[in-house]
Amino acid sequence: MDKVIVAGNGLLDRRTFLRGGAAFAAAITGYSLPARAEALKDEAWSLEPGGVSAPYEKRSRFEEKVARTLSNPNGEPRTQHARTPHHLLHGTLTPNPLHFTINHGGLPDIDPDRHRLAIHGLVKQPLVFDLDALARYPMVSRMTFLECGGNSAPLFSPQPVQASAQALHGLVSCAEWSGVMLSTLLEETGVDPKAKWLIAEGADAPALSRSVPLGKALDDAMVALYQNGERLMPGNGYPMRLLLPGWEGNMNVKFLRRLKLVDQPGMTYYESRTYAQILPGGKSYQFYFLQEVKSFITHPSPGLAMKGPGFYEISGVAYSGNGRISRVMVSADGGRSWAQAALQQPVLSKAFTRFRVPWRWDGGPAVLLSRAWDEAGNAQPTRAEFVAKRGETKGPVPPLAFPNQHFNAITSWAVDAKGEVRHVYA
Amino acid sequence: MDKVIVAGNGLLDRRTFLRGGAAFAAAITGYSLPARAEALKDEAWSLEPGGVSAPYEKRSRFEEKVARTLSNPNGEPRTQHARTPHHLLHGTLTPNPLHFTINHGGLPDIDPDRHRLAIHGLVKQPLVFDLDALARYPMVSRMTFLECGGNSAPLFSPQPVQASAQALHGLVSCAEWSGVMLSTLLEETGVDPKAKWLIAEGADAPALSRSVPLGKALDDAMVALYQNGERLMPGNGYPMRLLLPGWEGNMNVKFLRRLKLVDQPGMTYYESRTYAQILPGGKSYQFYFLQEVKSFITHPSPGLAMKGPGFYEISGVAYSGNGRISRVMVSADGGRSWAQAALQQPVLSKAFTRFRVPWRWDGGPAVLLSRAWDEAGNAQPTRAEFVAKRGETKGPVPPLAFPNQHFNAITSWAVDAKGEVRHVYA
Repeated sequence: MDKVIVAGNGLLDRRTFLRGGAAFAAAITGYSLPARAEALKDEAWSLEPGGVSAPYEKRSRFEEKVARTLSNPNGEPRTQHARTPHHLLHGTLTPNPLHFTINHGGLPDIDPDRHRLAIHGLVKQPLVFDLDALARYPMVSRMTFLECGGNSAPLFSPQPVQASAQALHGLVSCAEWSGVMLSTLLEETGVDPKAKWLIAEGADAPALSRSVPLGKALDDAMVALYQNGERLMPGNGYPMRLLLPGWEGNMNVKFLRRLKLVDQPGMTYYESRTYAQILPGGKSYQFYFLQEVKSFITHPSPGLAMKGPGFYEISGVAYSGNGRISRVMVSADGGRSWAQAALQQPVLSKAFTRFRVPWRWDGGPAVLLSRAWDEAGNAQPTRAEFVAKRGETKGPVPPLAFPNQHFNAITSWAVDAKGEVRHVYA
Repeated sequence: MDKVIVAGNGLLDRRTFLRGGAAFAAAITGYSLPARAEALKDEAWSLEPGGVSAPYEKRSRFEEKVARTLSNPNGEPRTQHARTPHHLLHGTLTPNPLHFTINHGGLPDIDPDRHRLAIHGLVKQPLVFDLDALARYPMVSRMTFLECGGNSAPLFSPQPVQASAQALHGLVSCAEWSGVMLSTLLEETGVDPKAKWLIAEGADAPALSRSVPLGKALDDAMVALYQNGERLMPGNGYPMRLLLPGWEGNMNVKFLRRLKLVDQPGMTYYESRTYAQILPGGKSYQFYFLQEVKSFITHPSPGLAMKGPGFYEISGVAYSGNGRISRVMVSADGGRSWAQAALQQPVLSKAFTRFRVPWRWDGGPAVLLSRAWDEAGNAQPTRAEFVAKRGETKGPVPPLAFPNQHFNAITSWAVDAKGEVRHVYA
């Protein structure tokens, strides 16, 4: 077995289980049948007919703990966040009821038959579309992650905030979106050569609006109508949203009702204030849209205690607004040595990539890190490198001056001898 | 525009919209803004704060019609079917609440902490696993369709049954499944060289059991724990099921509690009766497990009326238990001429592939067909070819003698001058 150890503190070669003949997990994780014959006793559910199927099926009552955590749970008239429980999910998709959302004016109860999308401004022919009209256009489907620019903001703190992967990184999710390419609709309206930006506006009460460079609109932007096969969830913009793969969540305007083509950005509330990150020197990141390469380990992670030494799989998600993930390296010794993770195929551009590394935990302290690279050659920085450039929160300063945007440095989890997992800065 | 017409009755080249400059949908589908300024009036939902987010989000109340249709809706003690509404979905995934299910003894209310999976019989070391144990093994994720062997059974009728794509083809769905490869667990137990089959048994009241050749178990079989990111739905086997990509749904045993390795098949109820298709000569398809290459058009389809001539997209799903879809051809003139459909990338093995063809409907009668090929070189037969070999339902014969399994021939929809869509045999 030792020949498959490829990095310090028990990390095993990612191909260990592909090669076969590596049956070392053995009785650590299963237990032999004869001693536990009662394990196959007939429980009540095996002895009587079960329940009735519903037209829209509900999950098991035993899964109710798998839920988004809410800020502002009573829905007072301010922003509400709902964070994805990454530590309780697996795979590369986020189920619709658990996709993160942030709403600044609550969830509008939109009648889809009365909703309209107007494209106007510097176009040759302004047009208004309803859902029936959009349904006749050529559609596309793509998997893509969406991430709030403020995801992982607690990691700007000088001391590691003790919280779950959900609390720290829960403002990112991944889904398959289907809809009409915005370029298709702009081909219909025509584009005035003076147009350089478009302002996207939502139909919610704050009429949330953001400016989008025309280049992105003509590249991979979509008017999304379906999320994981069904119509968008209310928190994700029902009945339609702008989708800008790889760009900060707030720009992916929900409840989309207007796209106005203009010759300069609108300097709207969310782009001139919240999403214009102030840097240590006092300048700000204006129009810094890209969500850069990032990863975090979901299993194990805080709240998922490990039950005794032996074999475990280290698993997490990686993603980049620049394209495909090319590599993820994992360390179990605080970054002194690294093993290459297996990437679940297919690795898709601007989508979650699930990575996995087999690990034999010896029961001693360990510090787990993941570091991702994307196909454009970018790598996650260390936290020290990141905060040197982007700042961290220090002392009593006005809230808006706190750096809290676009954190993409390495995240570290410490495992103690009891198997409990804490957030640390390695 | 005529140069992009590639087949009879208005079918357009699948690359029409990729090439750009093909703005021919134009005012057919959008309408100009000045004439409809009221379209951008502020509706009630734009003028007041919206609702509160929930920990597990619910879809819009306007989507309640998007639902599975149920047989045996009161859950009497016999089989219940729930069919996927393909004509109301888009993309390649089926959301969990809308995934088809068939249950022969209702939905067991299984406590996941008390559920056990035993692997025994012709193994070197019998083992019992609980969810905690399985969570420590290396996991994999894959998209795959699941289809009931009896899906599309109405198409064995000598006359085309008038029903929706949901009623005709709703016993197939596609999801991302995550879990532990069965080969990994069999490596743990070891396999006695005498073992040739395994019998999989569920924990539901009928203790549904099926025999699986050992070769499939060691190939791509999975003990699935997650469905589209979250734990399995109750109707799909919570907390674990056997997943046999590309093989008939009934074998993918739900509520999996036992895998017994044996030297011959068990001749269980479902394999010796329901799923042993009787052929015209009186022989039967015993152990015919593969779901063969298939496709159907979801848009347009019965129940989705077309609203006037002009541009539409013809779209549907294709899949094969043999691997990847290699090609889908579409006809709008009853099969006289064909256009190649665009395949949504990535095309994954044994998963739904969404296909699309642009179409300019002239308002006259049309008959739409789709025909899929897989990478193994198989093509869907015509219905006439299919029933010549496999039979059709004729007159008063005992129900069990009716052919009703593994229908995979071409499906045809007729569009009339009013834009209504009917099921026909072309």
